[in-house]
This record gives sequence, structure tokens and C-alpha cells, in this order.
Amino acid sequence: MTTTINRDTGQQFKVLGTRPIRHDGADKVTGRAKYGADIQMPGLLHGTIVRSPHAHARIKRIDTSKAARLAGVKAVVTAADIPILAKPLDLGDTLGNARLLAENCLALKKALYRGHAVAAIAAANPHLAEEAARLVEVEYEPLSAVFDIREAMQPSAPLVQEHLTTREINERNTRGQDSGQHSNVASHLQFAQGDVERAFTEADVVVEREFTTTAVHQGYIEPHVSTAFWASDGRVTVWTSSQGAFGIRSMTAKMLGLPDSLVKVVPMEIGGGFGGKTTTYIDAVAALLSKKTGRPVKITMTRREVFEATGPTAGSYMRCKMAAKKDGTITAARLHLAYEAGAFPGSPVGAGAMYGLGPYKIANFVVDGYDVVLNKPKVAAYRAPGTPQSCFAVETVVDELAARIGMDPLILRLKNAVRQSDRQVSGVPFPAIGCIDVEQAAQRHPHYAAPLGSPSSRSARRGRGFAMAYWGNGGNSSSATISVNVDGTINLITGSVDIGGTRAACAMQAAEVLGLRAEDVTPSVADTDSIGYTGITGGSRTAVGTGLATIYAAQQIKEVMMKRAATIWETSPGEVEYHDGVCLSKRDPNAHLTFKEIAAKMMPTGGPITASASSPVRNVGVSFSAALVDIEVDTETGKVDVLRATAFQDVGMPAHPSYVEGQMQGGTAQGLGWALSEEYVYDASGGMLNPSYLDYRMPTALDLPPIEAVMITVPNPNHPFGLRGVGEVSIVPPMAAVANAIYNAIGIRMTSLPMSPGAVLKALKDGR
Amino acid sequence: MTTTINRDTGQQFKVLGTRPIRHDGADKVTGRAKYGADIQMPGLLHGTIVRSPHAHARIKRIDTSKAARLAGVKAVVTAADIPILAKPLDLGDTLGNARLLAENCLALKKALYRGHAVAAIAAANPHLAEEAARLVEVEYEPLSAVFDIREAMQPSAPLVQEHLTTREINERNTRGQDSGQHSNVASHLQFAQGDVERAFTEADVVVEREFTTTAVHQGYIEPHVSTAFWASDGRVTVWTSSQGAFGIRSMTAKMLGLPDSLVKVVPMEIGGGFGGKTTTYIDAVAALLSKKTGRPVKITMTRREVFEATGPTAGSYMRCKMAAKKDGTITAARLHLAYEAGAFPGSPVGAGAMYGLGPYKIANFVVDGYDVVLNKPKVAAYRAPGTPQSCFAVETVVDELAARIGMDPLILRLKNAVRQSDRQVSGVPFPAIGCIDVEQAAQRHPHYAAPLGSPSSRSARRGRGFAMAYWGNGGNSSSATISVNVDGTINLITGSVDIGGTRAACAMQAAEVLGLRAEDVTPSVADTDSIGYTGITGGSRTAVGTGLATIYAAQQIKEVMMKRAATIWETSPGEVEYHDGVCLSKRDPNAHLTFKEIAAKMMPTGGPITASASSPVRNVGVSFSAALVDIEVDTETGKVDVLRATAFQDVGMPAHPSYVEGQMQGGTAQGLGWALSEEYVYDASGGMLNPSYLDYRMPTALDLPPIEAVMITVPNPNHPFGLRGVGEVSIVPPMAAVANAIYNAIGIRMTSLPMSPGAVLKALKDGR
Repeated sequence: MTTTINRDTGQQFKVLGTRPIRHDGADKVTGRAKYGADIQMPGLLHGTIVRSPHAHARIKRIDTSKAARLAGVKAVVTAADIPILAKPLDLGDTLGNARLLAENCLALKKALYRGHAVAAIAAANPHLAEEAARLVEVEYEPLSAVFDIREAMQPSAPLVQEHLTTREINERNTRGQDSGQHSNVASHLQFAQGDVERAFTEADVVVEREFTTTAVHQGYIEPHVSTAFWASDGRVTVWTSSQGAFGIRSMTAKMLGLPDSLVKVVPMEIGGGFGGKTTTYIDAVAALLSKKTGRPVKITMTRREVFEATGPTAGSYMRCKMAAKKDGTITAARLHLAYEAGAFPGSPVGAGAMYGLGPYKIANFVVDGYDVVLNKPKVAAYRAPGTPQSCFAVETVVDELAARIGMDPLILRLKNAVRQSDRQVSGVPFPAIGCIDVEQAAQRHPHYAAPLGSPSSRSARRGRGFAMAYWGNGGNSSSATISVNVDGTINLITGSVDIGGTRAACAMQAAEVLGLRAEDVTPSVADTDSIGYTGITGGSRTAVGTGLATIYAAQQIKEVMMKRAATIWETSPGEVEYHDGVCLSKRDPNAHLTFKEIAAKMMPTGGPITASASSPVRNVGVSFSAALVDIEVDTETGKVDVLRATAFQDVGMPAHPSYVEGQMQGGTAQGLGWALSEEYVYDASGGMLNPSYLDYRMPTALDLPPIEAVMITVPNPNHPFGLRGVGEVSIVPPMAAVANAIYNAIGIRMTSLPMSPGAVLKALKDGR
Repeated sequence: MTTTINRDTGQQFKVLGTRPIRHDGADKVTGRAKYGADIQMPGLLHGTIVRSPHAHARIKRIDTSKAARLAGVKAVVTAADIPILAKPLDLGDTLGNARLLAENCLALKKALYRGHAVAAIAAANPHLAEEAARLVEVEYEPLSAVFDIREAMQPSAPLVQEHLTTREINERNTRGQDSGQHSNVASHLQFAQGDVERAFTEADVVVEREFTTTAVHQGYIEPHVSTAFWASDGRVTVWTSSQGAFGIRSMTAKMLGLPDSLVKVVPMEIGGGFGGKTTTYIDAVAALLSKKTGRPVKITMTRREVFEATGPTAGSYMRCKMAAKKDGTITAARLHLAYEAGAFPGSPVGAGAMYGLGPYKIANFVVDGYDVVLNKPKVAAYRAPGTPQSCFAVETVVDELAARIGMDPLILRLKNAVRQSDRQVSGVPFPAIGCIDVEQAAQRHPHYAAPLGSPSSRSARRGRGFAMAYWGNGGNSSSATISVNVDGTINLITGSVDIGGTRAACAMQAAEVLGLRAEDVTPSVADTDSIGYTGITGGSRTAVGTGLATIYAAQQIKEVMMKRAATIWETSPGEVEYHDGVCLSKRDPNAHLTFKEIAAKMMPTGGPITASASSPVRNVGVSFSAALVDIEVDTETGKVDVLRATAFQDVGMPAHPSYVEGQMQGGTAQGLGWALSEEYVYDASGGMLNPSYLDYRMPTALDLPPIEAVMITVPNPNHPFGLRGVGEVSIVPPMAAVANAIYNAIGIRMTSLPMSPGAVLKALKDGR
């Protein structure tokens, strides 16, 4: 179910745009691919974590002696064993602050949320380790805790991080300035332009609403699992499930007080990450247990631990006020975004603030973002981090503006759509973008005007909703190495954990450069000792960023192949041309040598052919997407069923269309789950009530219709083949699209997520 | 116990020549290094081989049905399953002939030696596999067999390879010409110069003797072990103990009828090889069993299998006739070398013929070499393959010439020593060599004139012997990849199995180029998918050949570091100099940036830094060595004890002197074992009587004195730092040195190896 709308790129591709079988496919479907849980080695010990039963408590004493005496227990570690925690705290650099990460791995003086790790045990088997965990005696002094973001922002609220002062961030001071004010607000950032108050006064229509969203989890199937071995020569090896081995290396090394190069991280295949595996929880802990025991130590989280002690995305409290003229011009927006950071600073409110208004050119705006700590687990990245929340608010209000004016909401969006060179909220101008293209594609799509069909029962109501989204994507460096085989194939080595088919996408780019088939490339993912620095697989960057490194390496290979052809023809490389995998001689029209023929003569013409390259830090192109959703509300139960969903996205040139569509469909599915059923339910003491997939309700195949993916292909000028980051933006619009559809079905604006049966039923009752 | 004699190279090194702890040391001494036997994986099956009880027999029928019916047996394969054996035989290209290799892995129509593999079984565990092996019914038609090389060369001898015809090879026809003559002589090669007969007639002294040597085994501690998995997408992965993953890949792929790139070979750490692990026995068989079962299959040889069915070196029959004038000029040599190839063509007689006369400039010579098949296991390479045999003959005769003339044998050698530009037996001129340097070092060494000391008993006699040796070393290509870490260290990836410290030797070369410490380099050995083509670790080539690739990659890194310094200084790269790991500005004498400082700024100055390079096929420099040995003969038992041994060798610039000395000491120890105690003992039907380390008598630490290694350092002009291949030549001279020492002790010329107590006692009795 796919349509590709192609803006003419002028480029003809032989490999890109096709759908070969992915290189890692057979291993994955036959169970041969190696995941973190598959690690077994002689003498392996099993680690487990002792966790806090209190959401906020001073740790007065940890007595591990009973646990340590249990036969089969080999070592116990606490925060006192983490080298970086002996150093003074610097809260100035909160993002990626390894000291704060270490405190999240093992609580230092206070437990900051229910499930916060306080000690870890290594034992001969997991059962013994669990038994020993129960023997660890921790003396806690319970403290008042705060779970609600608005309460946490009050001056009277209990301070989660005692030394934390609010940092003020704006365009003029992007690193922020310390306000000196002790608070749970780690930072306040502001983007502003024009005269908002005046614009509101002068507008024909003003809509203001308040929104809340709860934390949702990335819902990766594979729990965090890490095995570490601290060798007697001081080198540490970590086999782990993560989205980037180099990131884990750097964080682990910092916590352990080691230079990066003494830590080798072996990236295992990953059973889902969605942003949640860009950080570390157990890697350094396993390493410390290994150091104490001299043996490899494996820690595998339970599902409960994943829910209670790894980062979901931020819950939020938001206010959105927007104004428009009768002709549909949006004249002003005021956005107040307060995002939960969890127990440590670092919510994704910055992205939420920058991208929430992304699809609109608005003359006057003020966007305030607040990063707020409270007694919940530290949040982590989740697909387009921070933007689904703000988009939910903005797109609901935009829909209401259109309704108030009496204009088709898509026409209103088109009227205010951003174009190349328009300035973003951050002030940076847009590069070549597909905002209008996405909106037009939705407008032209049969789904847009299709009849909704009859409700399935007397109590059912149907509606259609639309929402638009913007996401800025990420950027980081990657490395790639290519070696030529004598049989005319090539091996491609990258450092990018393959989440969504990036082995295939990178292999296809190498094949495109060299005029080979995708099957002629054997891609593999190497450990941190065996490939140049490569950033995480995240920020939608891998197919583009690692693809670039691959292209550069392939271009070097091409140059060498031309030189070898010249050697064979006893001419100069300047006399050789390369087309579609064949070297041609400018002098002799009959002379030609295929890649395969040159490879076969590689050894006598100068030896093996190999090249390495890296790509610089560079944004991978920005993304726009739209969701068009038909739903049916059962007004008796409040249950909302999704009848039809179409995702539109500007994907640039799709390297492997199936995997691009997969990203779009997966993101849409996650967005629909976030919209309708997923949420963290806490009790009064901060305990999560639904830490299992039985109770934390992710949508299954039975809950969703097939999702149609419509690719719009505006080439990314920063990539030679026009590829664009595609992995994240599709998660952004579904929540607002569903809310708008519900409004169209039952006339009620839903402003809290999830729009679960209970919430909808309550809204129906309140609305009557 | 080391002396380094340094011919001034004009080069100053900071890292080369030092003795850092090897990078793989901790893993190896703590048992963490992974060998082939350490491979474990879910569903692993165990393979075993059914072997022929006959030395020569036609295979009339193989009935595997009973074996296949045994519960737990998963698959049985025979030669009929090997794709390449379905193709017609081409005996024209005998060396590295994959079809012949395949016939050695599983016998096709005839079993050609006792222990020849005829079938293989995969079962749930090794015991079941063994039980099933006994149930395989093979109907043999026994044939006359031949075990003695002189008998095998007779026209009346049973033909081992029925289609084999003798190939005539000489300087004019180096690939050989088919004689059309059916014979067990696979090839006859000849090198000749001058008028030998006339020279013999005109000489003052002529000595002619006949020599025999028996097969000896490389004696690696680790048996062959290979695990293979044939994935459902047709890709084969092999984890194996070998001296070169790419060689195993190529041979395995050919046998299986696959392109190289569908086979991935993962080189495990190696527990010794010495040439014996440059070929393949069980890799393709494990792969075929995996194909049939869909599961990984591991085959581990027993020690008996290693002895009976893997290649020892060639036993030989030799005649050596040499002539000299009274002034010590050697005027003529005639060398007749017949080497056992085992059941398939391919003895190392070529090297024996080329290098036996290596240390001497002789105007007239004829060297005849015969490659002879017989009903014994196919021989394999063993440290300086083929040369210990011919050297034993030549150096014994040279010693006798000196005795007959009444000249010190070292003075005689110096008088006839080869120098740069002299022609080798093959006609190729010598490059810069250290023949005379080695001889002079021996002459000057205290050992040469030290008193022998009193015999330890009345029946004991002491003697000192000297012998000289030449070995041409090998050559092949290698690849290397270097990546820079942000902490200012580098990772080095090569494809060279590390037998003797080549990780360290290559890391040190990278460090030398970049002005880093050896500890700043993390070297690792990659599989065939993850590094460019790299030839075997053999032919003494790795430290030089893989070192060259490493140097080239490091030079690329250096260039990039200079560019980054230029970026930081906002100048052009041409304004930057690089000295000892520090960039200096030509413009600003105060500006300097260390490697570490530039690495820390790598990300913002252009991203990760990585480079790959390869070295072309190139000889790694030739080697001369000498052995000076003091022995004591117990004339009552015939036992010879080595009292003192000094090895002299031209090692070029020693990268890591400890490992160079280790090679010299190891080679000398193996040579002394070959001289005195090691031999294959066969019964009349071709069964080996001593296939265990209890009965096959390798020297232990108790049998040998400390071996002093004297390094002579004539730089190799083919390597920028002057490194020379060092791994093999030291095994060549000890046999003749011991024989000459025995002569000096008891006045008897020993002309057969080993000079075991029984052989010496017999010689003493015969001599009386």
C-alpha cells in the first residue's frame, strides 16, 4: 500500500529506490542474529540491581554484608564504587553529564524515584543474585516527593536536586545563564519574535487551550542487557544493546574514569530502541562488578525494571494560544511548554519548543519551555523527542482556528505553510523542504475526500482528523570502510547499529556509487575498536550520515579501480572513465573492464583495494509529515477505533522504500498508541501501577488498520543522492490527528493524552 | 641473553627496538583469548571424520545408512557432497589446487594414506559422532602401497596418483612442461650453472655423501578445530584455527563452489601453526555438514588425527657432492633432492633446491629436485619449508670440505660467502644481505672460542658444530585500517593472525610513524568481512608486509592530522610540520599541537579520522642465520645432549626485539628437535606408530639449554624502517650444526635424521 510522489530530481538511480532483501534478513528471521541476551562465556556472572522502594529518600546507610556472605555472591557495588561520583558535581553542563548519568545508574546520597538503583550484585546465577538483592539492607529517610509537573514548579515544592538552579536560555544566550534560583526548573528557554500581545488583540479569532500528556515508553521488545569484562590489563569490553557503541563507550569510560580507548563496546543486534537506547543504565555497573570479580558480568533488566527505571519520554503540561485573521492568516502564537525531565535535568523541551510551530510561518510568537525535575525516572529520547507533545497542542489549536473561521483546516495550513528560506522558530532558515508538498499530497490523496462510511453501531460516531508535523532531525559523524573482494564484490564496515535497515540502505549507496548490485555488498557493523568514530543511530541520521561516509569510501574505491584499469591498459588514470561499474578507455572505444574484471586482477596490479572515510557532523535534512486518520468513537464505552490511517512524509530520495515506509508506519503506530492507550499510571507514592505489557497498553496488530505510507520525495541538498532523515517525524502528528478526528466525530476537543476509553467517556459526560 | 649488533642505519627510533608488553598478552595469559575450541553456540553439532585403515585402497562402496540411523546423528557427508569434486581434475596447477585439497579433505575414489578421511558425521555430541563413525561401512579394495621415496621413484612402483605425469621445471620453463610420463614423480626441477663435471675434475677436494631425513611435524599444541555455519541465505561463516583467514576463505569457497564473498572466515587465536595451518582439512567438511543440517557444526581433531592426517614436513632422500680448492674456494656443487610430497603433489623441494646452497657463491652447480608422491599424508609447510633438509646435506658436506682442507669451517664459509648483487641459485641477484655479517658475528662471539669443558662422564665426548643457513622468505599483500580516538589513541585493524607478536610489531610501526607510544595503539585482528585482503601469516612476512600496510595507513592519518592542525590555526597544511607526534607551525614558532590535542578537536574540525591502506605483494627481505652448538655424546647410550646453543640471524631492524629473539629461539629449538629426536615411525603397512606427544618426541624445556639469540641488523631496503622477515630461518641450521658437533665429538658423520640415541649408537658400532 504505497504511493511514491517524486519531484523530479534529475538523477537516475539503479539501486536506490529498489527493494532488495536486507542483508541481515536471513540471520534475523532464522534466529541467528546475536542479541545482548545471547552473550555466554565461561565464568559468566549474573548481576542484579537493588532498587529503591521510595520515590524520594535520603540513603543513610547501605549494609551489603549479609548479601555478600550468601554463597555464590561474588561482589556488591554501590555508588561509592563509581569513580566519577568521587568528583565534584558540575550542574553547568546538564546534557550528557556523565556524573548525573552515573547517579542514575547508582543513587549517590538520595533515591530520587521508585526503582532508582542503589546497589548491584554479581552472583553465580540470576536467582542467587536476586536472593542476595533482598539481603541488602538500605536505611532510608523518606522525603516529601513531587510527581506533578505543575506542583514541581511551585517554589514550595520539595527540591529533587538540591543544588539545582534554573538556567535561563534564549537566542542570545544559547548555553544559558544561571539564575541563581534554587528550583526544580532546571532550565527555562524562550524563543520570541514580533509583538504577540498586539497580534492577539488585532486578531479575528483567538483560541487558547491547556494540554497534558503523560509519560509513554518507547516500548522496545528487548530489555536492556549488558555484559562487561574488565580484563587484568585494565581494558574493559562491553557487549550491549544500544543505539550506538561509541556513545556507550564514551559514557561508560567517563563514569569509570578511563580514557575512551580502554573501553571497547561491541554493539549487539538491537531489539528496538526508538531513542531509549541512546543512554546507559547498567553498562558501567556490570563493568564495576567485573572489576571486583575478575569475571564477565551480565545484567539483564526485567520488563518491570525497564518501565520503572529507564527513561520514558516526558509527560507534559502545555498551554497554547494562537490567533488568526478571517482570511486564514495565523498571526500569533504563544506556547507554554513544561516537560517532565524525571529525576535529573534533561527533558526534550528544547526540541518541543523549536519544532512545535514548525509547519507555520507566524510573524509573532513567544515560546517558553521549562525543563522540570520531579520524582520519576529520568526521561530518555523517544522518536522525535519532545515534539509529539507540542505538536499535539499546536495542531489541535490550529484545527480549532480553522473550525472557528470556517475554513478547511488543510487549506488554512497551506496558507501558512513554510517554504525554503523562511526562518524557523530558532531563527535558522529552512533549507529545501517539503512542507507544502506534504500538505498538497494529502489534499490530493483519495483518503482526504473519501466517505467515512456508516458507523458500526447506533452509539458509534465517525470522524476524520488531520495534523501536520515538523521535526528537525539530528546530525553526527560516521565512518565507513570498504574492501574489495577478488570476486568483484565488496565488504562494507560501518559503526552504525542497524535498527531499521541501515545496513541495506548504506550498502545500496555504495552499490550506487560503484555500479554494483546491492547483493554485491556485504555490510557489517563493527565494534568501537574496529571502525572509526560513528555517532548513534538516532535523530533519523544513519542512512544519510553513515551513508555519506559510505559514499566517500566508495568514491575512493572508484578512483583506485580507475587507476588499476589504467595500469592494465598501460595508460594514465585520466584516460579512464567509470560508468555503471565499468571502466572505459577514452582512447580505445572497444576497451572496457568491469568492476569484477578489475577486482580479479587486483593482486597483480597493486594489491588489495581498501578505503576508509568519515562524514563530518552535518544535519541530515529536516522532515515534514502529516497524518490523516479516520476514527470511530463508541459513545457508550468511550473506546476509539482507528479505521484508516495515512501517513504522508517528505522522505527525500528513499534509499530502500520498504524501510522508509516501515519507519513511517512504525512511527504512526507508535503515535496512535500514544494518542489512545499508552500511559504511565502511578499510585500516590510514585509507584508505577502498570509496569508490564499486559497493563501498559501498546497497540497490537489487532488494534490498528493497515497504515498507508505516502512518500514525498523532495531531495535533501546536503546529500549527493538526496536522502533525507526519515525515522522519526511520523510519530509526531497522529495524536493531534486523532484528537481532531474525535472532535469531528463527537464535537469534543480532547486535550489530554491518552484519549483512552475512560478519558473519552468522561469528556462525553462532562460535555453533556 | 641478547646482543644486538647494529649496522648504522642512520635512523633513530623511539618505539621500534623497545620491548613493550604485547597488547594481547593479558588476554592470553589469563585464558580470555578465544581459540577455535572456545566456540560455542546454540544448536551446535559436533562432527567427526571416518578415516581409512588402509594406506592405499580403492573405495568401492560407502554405506552410511547404519550411521545415519543412529539417534542423534544429523548428517553424513562423503566426497560426493563436495561440489568441486564433481569437476574434472586438472593436475596442471598442482600448487594450491583446490580440487586436490578437497580430495585430501574427503577421499574421492581411493584412500591414499592411513588416516585419509573418507566420510564425516555430524551428531548432537562428539561421543555420538564417534559411535556413528564406527557404523559407517566402507568397502575397500586394498592396493599395493609405497612408503619409501626411492622406491616410489622407481618405474615399477605402485602409482599413487594414477593420472599424474612428471612436470619438468627449470629456469627457462618455470611453470613446467608435462613430460607425459606417468610416475610418482610429480615434478622434477633443475637449477644449473657452469660446468660441474669439469669443476669436480679440477678440484683439490671432493666430498660426496647421501642423506635421509624423516617427516617431522610442526608440533603445534592446538589441534585443528573449525566450526562452520551455512546460513539459510547461502552465506557460510567459518570460525577456525588457521594462519590466514583469507586463504581459508579462498580454499573453502573453491571447494564449495561459492564465490569468496559468500564465505566469511573468522580467525580465532592460534595455538601454534609453524606453516601447518596455512592449509585446510576440516573447514569445508564442517560447512557441508552444516548445510545438510541447517545448524552450526564443529570439528575438532584429536592429536592422533593431527599426526596421521595433517601435513608434516617432507621426509627426504638427498645426495650432495661438493668440491673445493686448497685455498678454500668452493668450486662446484651437485645436489640431488628427492622430497616426499605425501599422497598429493606439493613438497617444498623447490625452496630446498633454491636455498640449500644459498650462503655460498659457487661458479658451477647442478641442483635437481624431485617432488615425489607416496602413501603418506600430504605434507604441509613447516617453517622455512624444504630448506632444513637441503641445508643439513650442504652444511655437513661444507664442514667436511673444511676438515679435508684443514681450514676452520667458518673461515671457509666467509671465503665463499655471498654479498649483495651476487646471483642466487635461482638467478635472482641478492639484495642487501647479512651473510658475512652473520658469519663475522659468530666468529667474534665468545661462544665460538670458549672451552668445551670436561665431559660429564668417562663415556661422554664433547664437540662443537657450526652451520650456516639461508632462507628467501615470502611475500604477499596485507591491509590495515587505522581510526583515531578522541582521547588521542588509535585503533589498528589488520587481517593478520597473530602467531608471534605481530599485533605488537604492527602497532609499534604505527606508533613510530605517528609519534605515539606502543600503548597508544589498540591492535585487533578482523575477519574476512571486516578488513581488506591480507595474505597468510607465514613466510616470515607479517611484521614486514602487514607492517607496511600499517605504515601507509598511519601516513594517511598523519596527513589528516596536519590538515586538522592547519584548520585549527587557520593556515594551509603546507605550513604545518609533524615531528614526533606534534604538529608545528612553520610561521609561528610557538604554535604546537600534540596528536592528543588534535584528536580531542577531531569532531569540530571535520569529523572522525580514519584511513585504510594495503601493501602490494613484495618479498619481505631475505634471511641468513647460523647455529653454533655444543653437544655431548654419551657413547654408551648414543644420547646427544645439547650443552649450549647460540643462534645468529640477520633480522634487519627488530621491531620488538623480544619477539624476534623468540622466533630465533623457537626456530632453533625446533631445529634441535628435528636433529635429535623427532620422527614419524611407520609400521610396514604405513601406520604411524607414534601419533602422540608421548611417543613423538619433541624437545621439552628439560632437553634444551637456554638459547642465546644474537641479532644482526642489516636493514631491509624494501621497508622504510628496515624490518626484515625473521620467523623462519633459525630452524634451518641446527641439524647440520649438531651433526658437525657430533663429528667433532666422536669423529663420525651422521647423515640421517634424527640423530637419536639408537641412530648414534648404531653409527658408533658401524664406525668401529
